[in-house]
Amino acid sequence: MQPFRLDPGRRMSDAVRIGNLIFLAGQIPVDLSADIAVQTRQVLDAIDGVMARFGGSKSDLVSVQVWLSDMADFQGMNAVWDTWVDQENPPARATCGVALARPGMRVEMVAVANLVEVPSK
Amino acid sequence: MQPFRLDPGRRMSDAVRIGNLIFLAGQIPVDLSADIAVQTRQVLDAIDGVMARFGGSKSDLVSVQVWLSDMADFQGMNAVWDTWVDQENPPARATCGVALARPGMRVEMVAVANLVEVPSK
Amino acid sequence: MQPFRLDPGRRMSDAVRIGNLIFLAGQIPVDLSADIAVQTRQVLDAIDGVMARFGGSKSDLVSVQVWLSDMADFQGMNAVWDTWVDQENPPARATCGVALARPGMRVEMVAVANLVEVPSK
Repeated sequence: MQPFRLDPGRRMSDAVRIGNLIFLAGQIPVDLSADIAVQTRQVLDAIDGVMARFGGSKSDLVSVQVWLSDMADFQGMNAVWDTWVDQENPPARATCGVALARPGMRVEMVAVANLVEVPSK
Repeated sequence: MQPFRLDPGRRMSDAVRIGNLIFLAGQIPVDLSADIAVQTRQVLDAIDGVMARFGGSKSDLVSVQVWLSDMADFQGMNAVWDTWVDQENPPARATCGVALARPGMRVEMVAVANLVEVPSK
Repeated sequence: MQPFRLDPGRRMSDAVRIGNLIFLAGQIPVDLSADIAVQTRQVLDAIDGVMARFGGSKSDLVSVQVWLSDMADFQGMNAVWDTWVDQENPPARATCGVALARPGMRVEMVAVANLVEVPSK
């Protein structure tokens, strides 16, 4: 099955679609000096943006790993997540605390999604 | 392809099925004061429970990420895993040490499974 | 859908194929006294080896989680990755710092791949 790669760079693609399944690269915040609320919003915006590029939305998410650099941010992340997620169609989710790639980065999310309508090309 | 969400809550689903593939939410122990053996057993029981809801079993697991809050529990987790896993049909697996969501939580597992027989609905 | 398990052991398989999708176990280095460059090369060699067993290659990778035991190795890992990855067909990727299973282990990768041509058996 032929894959479709979104924005392939020299190191990675921003997402890869295989049939109806989309595997997203780790989505990261843009403002590494911001607090967990702002950074979570930016990561969710990034997910929205990737999904829109495929003609989908957050309602199509299947599973999300939430990576926090400090588990003390768990509630702060959830507060933003809960107002964003499609509460009729939420993904499976798991959250853990890890070291993230850049100083100041507080949250990263790794997602898999499913397109109900698969593009013909 | 239409997804099927198991026990969708306002924050997440316990699992999402896309065709034959099932993406499970992070499965967690119920007794956070218990040792690694008991907590591992509880997480594996939770996986068994989710798989049973789909008419499947642990033999249908494809991949499992094992998250430990202390890698010193690696052998203790494995001792329970090894008596549980279907040794004829084991999943791919990877284990790492991370911070988990609640104090006392020693293990969480994130799994993907495949149903050999896909439900018609 | 019937799975195909590569090198199933009593604890885990080295990879599990479901149709065109392959879920690899965490691929690890062989020399735990080596530096990040050597260990990264060994992990990438291991991925190449698994993909070859399926008649595929690194060009078929869909997503890769890179786990480092020390995020100070991020650039060292990337230097090797960048010369290895198929820059026309890169996977989605996410990198984090975690505790790894054995002392001296600096990098582990968890990958999903897609076979363009699926074996008939």
